[in-house]
Amino acid sequence: MDAALAEARAAAARGEVPIGAVVVCDGAIIAADGNRTLELSDPTAHAEMLALRQACAHLASQRLPECDLYVTLEPCPMCAAAISFARVRRLYFGAADPKGGAVESGVRLFRQPTCHHAPEVYSGLAEQDAAELLRGFFLERR
Amino acid sequence: MDAALAEARAAAARGEVPIGAVVVCDGAIIAADGNRTLELSDPTAHAEMLALRQACAHLASQRLPECDLYVTLEPCPMCAAAISFARVRRLYFGAADPKGGAVESGVRLFRQPTCHHAPEVYSGLAEQDAAELLRGFFLERR
Repeated sequence: MDAALAEARAAAARGEVPIGAVVVCDGAIIAADGNRTLELSDPTAHAEMLALRQACAHLASQRLPECDLYVTLEPCPMCAAAISFARVRRLYFGAADPKGGAVESGVRLFRQPTCHHAPEVYSGLAEQDAAELLRGFFLERR
Repeated sequence: MDAALAEARAAAARGEVPIGAVVVCDGAIIAADGNRTLELSDPTAHAEMLALRQACAHLASQRLPECDLYVTLEPCPMCAAAISFARVRRLYFGAADPKGGAVESGVRLFRQPTCHHAPEVYSGLAEQDAAELLRGFFLERR
């Protein structure tokens, strides 16, 4: 989660919403990125999406059943669905996102009967740091 | 929708699930693609995602408020969320997808209180052709 927080800080330094994600496989980080929606003019360039796509490219597979994803904020519906499609084994996330999240908030995607794969979910890791980063960022922009 | 169906057929010819999508802006197609999850080893490479990302790159913007998306199948939660993030004006889709869809099926993402932007939705366009393509594809694989 420290590596994900570092990606979130790097995103903030680029002027992006400070969210970071890393994919771990066999104890090694195989993909890491932060939000790049502004830089790439791409509304799908959330940290999780970029990290998942990197990990899939790295393993030349669209499935990551041996991989765990660490992300500083609760994933949105887009990212939660991508996590499910990729068959990610475990999801660790930092701060909850009652407004935009889709894991323990909103549509709770993994609990839907139409969800084919739900990762094990561990929430609240480094929650304070992750939330503080986001609060600081949005305070500055107001 | 004819162009989206052509993209779906091209996807089938590549061995991919036959779904196609196009983005139209000011009466012109500015992006078109079909599913490429196998080819790209990327579980996020749904037709809609690729077409949206192309359109955003083309306009150098992560928002597409003047654009309409045509897709042969009802979008999944990942694509529906991306459509919302991109502020797509109108969504036209072909066949309904009761198992995987998230517009008129499943979590009905655009009707959620946490959804910031919902496109106008028009369903059932060229529904027969779109559904027939998918049926044929999955029959062949059995």
